[in-house]
Amino acid sequence: MSKKNRLRIIPLGGLGEVGKNMMAYEYGSDIIVVDAGIMFPKNDMLGVDYIIPDYEYLKKKSNHVLGLFITHGHEDHIGAVQHFTEDIPVPVYATPLTRGLIEAKLHRNGAQHKVQMKTINAGDSTRIGPFTLEYFHVNHSIPDAVGIGITTPAGLVIHMSDFKFDQTPVDGWPTDFAKLSEFSNRGVDLLLSDSTNAERPGWTPSESVIRPAFEKVLSEAEGRVIVATFASLISRVQQVADAAKVTGRKMALAGTSMVDNVKIARKMKYLEIPDEMIVPIEQALNMQDHKVVIMCTGSQGEPSSIVGRLSAGTNRQFGLKDGDTVVLSSHPIPGNEESISATINRLLRKGAKVIHDGIAPIHVSGHAAQEEQKLLINLVRPKHFMPIHGELRQLIRHAEIAQQMGIEEENTIVAENGQVVELVGKKILLGERIPGDYVFVTGESIGDIDHDVMKERSQLARSGIMLIDISIDRKNGRLLHEPEIVTRGFVSPEDAESLIPDVRRLIMRTVHDDGFDDEKDIINTVKSYLHQQTKRRPMVFVTLSKS
Amino acid sequence: MSKKNRLRIIPLGGLGEVGKNMMAYEYGSDIIVVDAGIMFPKNDMLGVDYIIPDYEYLKKKSNHVLGLFITHGHEDHIGAVQHFTEDIPVPVYATPLTRGLIEAKLHRNGAQHKVQMKTINAGDSTRIGPFTLEYFHVNHSIPDAVGIGITTPAGLVIHMSDFKFDQTPVDGWPTDFAKLSEFSNRGVDLLLSDSTNAERPGWTPSESVIRPAFEKVLSEAEGRVIVATFASLISRVQQVADAAKVTGRKMALAGTSMVDNVKIARKMKYLEIPDEMIVPIEQALNMQDHKVVIMCTGSQGEPSSIVGRLSAGTNRQFGLKDGDTVVLSSHPIPGNEESISATINRLLRKGAKVIHDGIAPIHVSGHAAQEEQKLLINLVRPKHFMPIHGELRQLIRHAEIAQQMGIEEENTIVAENGQVVELVGKKILLGERIPGDYVFVTGESIGDIDHDVMKERSQLARSGIMLIDISIDRKNGRLLHEPEIVTRGFVSPEDAESLIPDVRRLIMRTVHDDGFDDEKDIINTVKSYLHQQTKRRPMVFVTLSKS
Repeated sequence: MSKKNRLRIIPLGGLGEVGKNMMAYEYGSDIIVVDAGIMFPKNDMLGVDYIIPDYEYLKKKSNHVLGLFITHGHEDHIGAVQHFTEDIPVPVYATPLTRGLIEAKLHRNGAQHKVQMKTINAGDSTRIGPFTLEYFHVNHSIPDAVGIGITTPAGLVIHMSDFKFDQTPVDGWPTDFAKLSEFSNRGVDLLLSDSTNAERPGWTPSESVIRPAFEKVLSEAEGRVIVATFASLISRVQQVADAAKVTGRKMALAGTSMVDNVKIARKMKYLEIPDEMIVPIEQALNMQDHKVVIMCTGSQGEPSSIVGRLSAGTNRQFGLKDGDTVVLSSHPIPGNEESISATINRLLRKGAKVIHDGIAPIHVSGHAAQEEQKLLINLVRPKHFMPIHGELRQLIRHAEIAQQMGIEEENTIVAENGQVVELVGKKILLGERIPGDYVFVTGESIGDIDHDVMKERSQLARSGIMLIDISIDRKNGRLLHEPEIVTRGFVSPEDAESLIPDVRRLIMRTVHDDGFDDEKDIINTVKSYLHQQTKRRPMVFVTLSKS
Repeated sequence: MSKKNRLRIIPLGGLGEVGKNMMAYEYGSDIIVVDAGIMFPKNDMLGVDYIIPDYEYLKKKSNHVLGLFITHGHEDHIGAVQHFTEDIPVPVYATPLTRGLIEAKLHRNGAQHKVQMKTINAGDSTRIGPFTLEYFHVNHSIPDAVGIGITTPAGLVIHMSDFKFDQTPVDGWPTDFAKLSEFSNRGVDLLLSDSTNAERPGWTPSESVIRPAFEKVLSEAEGRVIVATFASLISRVQQVADAAKVTGRKMALAGTSMVDNVKIARKMKYLEIPDEMIVPIEQALNMQDHKVVIMCTGSQGEPSSIVGRLSAGTNRQFGLKDGDTVVLSSHPIPGNEESISATINRLLRKGAKVIHDGIAPIHVSGHAAQEEQKLLINLVRPKHFMPIHGELRQLIRHAEIAQQMGIEEENTIVAENGQVVELVGKKILLGERIPGDYVFVTGESIGDIDHDVMKERSQLARSGIMLIDISIDRKNGRLLHEPEIVTRGFVSPEDAESLIPDVRRLIMRTVHDDGFDDEKDIINTVKSYLHQQTKRRPMVFVTLSKS
């Protein structure tokens, strides 16, 4: 098989959510990249702010990267654009709203002039190197999302990023079925499709179905209504604005990202909210409570969000008051259940009424469920199928669905991040494995926390530390003063009070009676004593000076 | 109102799950306690093994505690029996199976002779001090569970612990409706009821409905089937054994707690599994794969459980092989979603098929849903209602349900742990707040980790530590050698290599040029430098010796 006529498909990064945050396509020596997003850390990733894909492989070939193509404006698809373009300065292609959201983000970081942006539109196509990209509209929980048909001499690949089939989308613009059929007629060699909801039977309801629930909440609430959702969930803002209009409330926005995003979406006409419906937050706080709905962030219980701060009583601009209703208009992202539940309890404790998707239909998923996944396969009739955008459990489930639809088992391929897949001679093969993991980001520095540092942190966190400072008389090898001992995160002050004198005596005995070689002796002796006394294993450090 | 005729109801401990792990009833100076359970730590409770209720209030009155009454044999109701009776040595009352499970646990800890156990049976009653306790059978996901009617001169209180109304329970023994009606006829002053599923509409399905799903899995699987569930979910073991019988498989048990519990339950006839159905695990491993089902623990992805170890490839007795099917027969406990998902992915990566409650009906809840909660209220017709066994969000929801059923708002009372509730003169009032929080248990030591230690751990975990050792010449105030610097959990070795020389120079400058007072100066200088360079705030420690 000629290596020349070979498309390499490379899912990168993303905490096991395959190819969600970044995907590369390599033909010959040319590369295009789809999406550059961030992920939020798992609960055991201590002190990490967020995570970006490990694109070391692309950095080494950065001269061959032709462009970055963004499917839609969610953080897990655009959040790493700035990091990526700093390392690999290529043009970024995005639809108008997506571009606006990226630019707002860059602007907040003072980096708006550093990135070269190009506008694309659903229906457009781009020829770049050996690639022809055809963008087509898809429904998702944000407007202006696209899928991409990618043609190379190796064949036609459909890259379905996050999508659903919404027959009655809020913006009246359904997924482009005609284009999918056209691809089908041409012959699709490989379909990559969103596996997020591969474990969910049936159809995902239309975004429109939540409108009545919002009208009910807004008309029944006697006080203010505070609706929290993702700042990028533009269609949700539209729904709440529409419900506010018919229930006689004005809308105010709280939080920088929410204010910015709504401004952009309104300006670009992705949001149709009349001027008289929107009031500044300061004005809203002085209006009658039942005339107001406040849109803000924090539906996942994030401590630094507006709702997180409201629940903790630390929001500076305004606080909760009796009669407030807080609506958490999202579904818990796996891993966030605990902090969301704690947030709900705190809001209730402060006297607010809380409405979440477990008790009222105020949220629907933005991802295709099983029947939609099947419909896509029937529309496209691909020769090969590769599930993406999910953890292994969802990918395998999605591959099973594809096989039920008649795609041969040998024509479906499940690959995790870093696993290269090759489309060559109209066949699909597993290629080599490359680093496709993720990079921790903390503070402003990237990647300088590796898995070893994380292991040390988890060890520090598990049992704390003990620091021992001893000085020895060079002449006679005896201690010059009693050992100084400090602990952190180990035992309570009361227990330390009873434990530390014993440790001191133990060290003195080790140094004076048992002969003494070096710090290691003391560390080991103390460690085993502490474990025996407390069943814990703190990190023990000794500093030794001789004089 | 005479203080004499006053019943105090005191929910204790349990991470916000009100009164689940422990509940005290105090009349005059006499106290009885219902349940003594443990809870597992939240994700941000670093290095904690488990949590027990803070029963300091009871310790101070330990001479007045008359007995500990256990409603059923789940860990969150029996796990702290040993701790409790060590502090407050009172008789423990439990039904036969519950007693057997407690004794097995005590036996594993070598404490079987330290606790005085008394057997009670559903239908029995106990008079103790001013209390008359009447036990009645309830359905739950473990056999031999009871609710308790508690009569004092202050009135009749029904303590419904975990329950559901299962019309076709696996053991053929439904909840005692007749007793509930009898209580109703007598007049119930206060009903305390299980709020776990207060956000779930409808009825919880019968445990029997999962039998067909297990028969399907066991008949379709071509290899071994490994079923993981809680060791105390006795009725699940019965279901799997029944399904194994009709599908021609033998059952083996893996894991100490599973082996122990099944042995006890079989001996006491709570489990009806013929001898020929059970084979030792060693024998099962040598049988044909499709003739075997293995019951074990680990349905919550616990790393130390059998399934946790199978997924990590560290189970000594046996490993996974191609063709294995692993069934996780439970629902994720909130907070465990992430680790369960990681476990599922690891099992799949090892080639096993994984079936969980998201894709097949192989689990039902053991708790009443809204319609059952309503039925209970209609059966009992209490004057007052207090939701227990839930977080605030579920309690408030359950109180709303009671109000929908016609119980006056002023007659429903929502109290969190440590909030004393008083039944006095046939009225219900909020009493004082007492410590009703929880106590961390790590290793073998209890309670010596307080919230401050936890805070230090979380700080250590967030950015790690830097230790600086410096020696100063007493005569001229100059450094005797370059500062020695060690970091843990802070930055990667490569970054440390570039950062540490700068920190060294900074310290030397601080000591030599800027004048030098004490360690504080150096700590502050280094801290602000590190933050400026890395945006992180590690804990910095300096040891200083002068000679």
